[in-house]
Amino acid sequence: MTKFAIGVDLGGTYTKLALIDTSGRISRRAKLSTTAYKTRGELVSAIVSEVKAVLEKTHLSPNALLGVGIGVPGLVDFDRGLVYTLTNVPGWKNTPLKGILEAKLKVPVLVDNDVNVMTLGECRFGAGKGAKNLVCITLGTGVGGGIMIDGRLYRGCTFSAGEVGHMPLKEEGLSCNCGGYGCLERYVGNRYIVEEIRGKIRGGSPTAIKGLVNGDLSAITPEVISKAALKGDRLSIDFWNTVGKRIGVTLAGIVNLLNPERIIIGGGVAEAGEPLFKSIRKTVHERALPVPKKAVKILKARLGNEAGVIGAAALFFNPKG
Amino acid sequence: MTKFAIGVDLGGTYTKLALIDTSGRISRRAKLSTTAYKTRGELVSAIVSEVKAVLEKTHLSPNALLGVGIGVPGLVDFDRGLVYTLTNVPGWKNTPLKGILEAKLKVPVLVDNDVNVMTLGECRFGAGKGAKNLVCITLGTGVGGGIMIDGRLYRGCTFSAGEVGHMPLKEEGLSCNCGGYGCLERYVGNRYIVEEIRGKIRGGSPTAIKGLVNGDLSAITPEVISKAALKGDRLSIDFWNTVGKRIGVTLAGIVNLLNPERIIIGGGVAEAGEPLFKSIRKTVHERALPVPKKAVKILKARLGNEAGVIGAAALFFNPKG
Repeated sequence: MTKFAIGVDLGGTYTKLALIDTSGRISRRAKLSTTAYKTRGELVSAIVSEVKAVLEKTHLSPNALLGVGIGVPGLVDFDRGLVYTLTNVPGWKNTPLKGILEAKLKVPVLVDNDVNVMTLGECRFGAGKGAKNLVCITLGTGVGGGIMIDGRLYRGCTFSAGEVGHMPLKEEGLSCNCGGYGCLERYVGNRYIVEEIRGKIRGGSPTAIKGLVNGDLSAITPEVISKAALKGDRLSIDFWNTVGKRIGVTLAGIVNLLNPERIIIGGGVAEAGEPLFKSIRKTVHERALPVPKKAVKILKARLGNEAGVIGAAALFFNPKG
Repeated sequence: MTKFAIGVDLGGTYTKLALIDTSGRISRRAKLSTTAYKTRGELVSAIVSEVKAVLEKTHLSPNALLGVGIGVPGLVDFDRGLVYTLTNVPGWKNTPLKGILEAKLKVPVLVDNDVNVMTLGECRFGAGKGAKNLVCITLGTGVGGGIMIDGRLYRGCTFSAGEVGHMPLKEEGLSCNCGGYGCLERYVGNRYIVEEIRGKIRGGSPTAIKGLVNGDLSAITPEVISKAALKGDRLSIDFWNTVGKRIGVTLAGIVNLLNPERIIIGGGVAEAGEPLFKSIRKTVHERALPVPKKAVKILKARLGNEAGVIGAAALFFNPKG
């Protein structure tokens, strides 16, 4: 009998659900606006209704459903299914989400951090397929990471492992909003790279970006910089080169420390594609040790926006998650 | 019945053996001069004789001996027991040491890298006792590291994990003899810290070190700098502070990435003690994220020179090493 799990991707803007079989195929989806619900309780009720609706529509035999996995943007005690806090979703401090959902749904529930869940999804069904030891990083507003060791998520002793964005890029460096300074995220996070290129344009660097945003520098996004780079814009190409080098320095350290089979890079900024990846790979090649650098493949994430739901469901497909 | 293993610590200068029980107690020892043997074959034969001598003298029942574990200073394929190469011991390229020793001794043999073996020893019987996830670093001529995940050594996909000394401390930086640049080892390795303080003294910094070496700057060692620091020498105290900060920056990154329960620091430079450890802990506190920094303990290694033999024997005390 084919087994299934429901994956829930609770995001700051949307909450997505999908029914997924153990081979990673999605057979049914639903989507909620996270911000449309005023309280935690309302959002939880909406998720419960959607899960029930999916189960009713699909006439799944109760034994075919392994459980409901949910990925959330924040720190989670995986063992207890306790959400300590969510980024950008207020009112979730110390929520025993696993217990709440299990009481309402009467099926097993597993709760994990969204980047862990994405890492698991990519490892089982995406760019990490077949690998047992890998590191996944997400490049967006924040820079996050997840680690698979021996085919299982490695969460660390207090469930906070994988914070690649807060590894020091610089021995000294700019203050980061984590309380530290010199962190990678402070130099390659969405907001900072947009600020940085705006500064260069204001400083007089000629660029095709200006035309792409009709002179409105506040409209610059990483996507715009990527578009300009693809058109051959020198400033944009050099800029992705610089950003890639920064990411590559941190990844070279991770390659030397963890000797992973693969490093998978996802998130909006990863859409910059080749100009960025070329620079990352070149830097890792320059700075990592011969044996681990020969062993590692640096790949773009493959599951895109589906990584969240697929990975959340996959919490039930993996021995001990 | 109490079970035993023989631990062998093959070092560049001495090769030490000991019979060790599963509670980490040493009951018999032997020591060879590694450099006294001209060929690999002669050294192997000498190790075999010593192992046999230990077994004869102790009248161990054959079932009481789990096997012979051996730690070597170089890259090892643990699964195959193959030594790829040894640092400072010539003639060992691609040696199937496990096979050679098993044929001669007729007991199971496990071979691993010396820092891995030390990490395992400290985790089972030293400063890491009771912890399941930890990182061990050794500060000496080289800066090495080992990683325990879930109570087992984590070796990486090509057995080269743990190279803490070659994580980038600086985004740019000085060339390292690994082929990269800006590596931690280039700033805190024995040789470099001695060079650096010599430069400061030649540059005119007043210090008690001069007196301790009777003006012979070539006689400066990390031990001398530590002695001066203990006597309140400003230059030496400030120097350990700087070295500790550099180590702390890299460790803050490891704390954020791996969220370990403990970080254990051994090797000669760790003997600098409190001036060094205070600075390491302060830096980790300043730069690591709140949750993982609260969770981690940064401790001095406890097994000293016995870590090698104890850890090598412990390869047989741990499920899957």
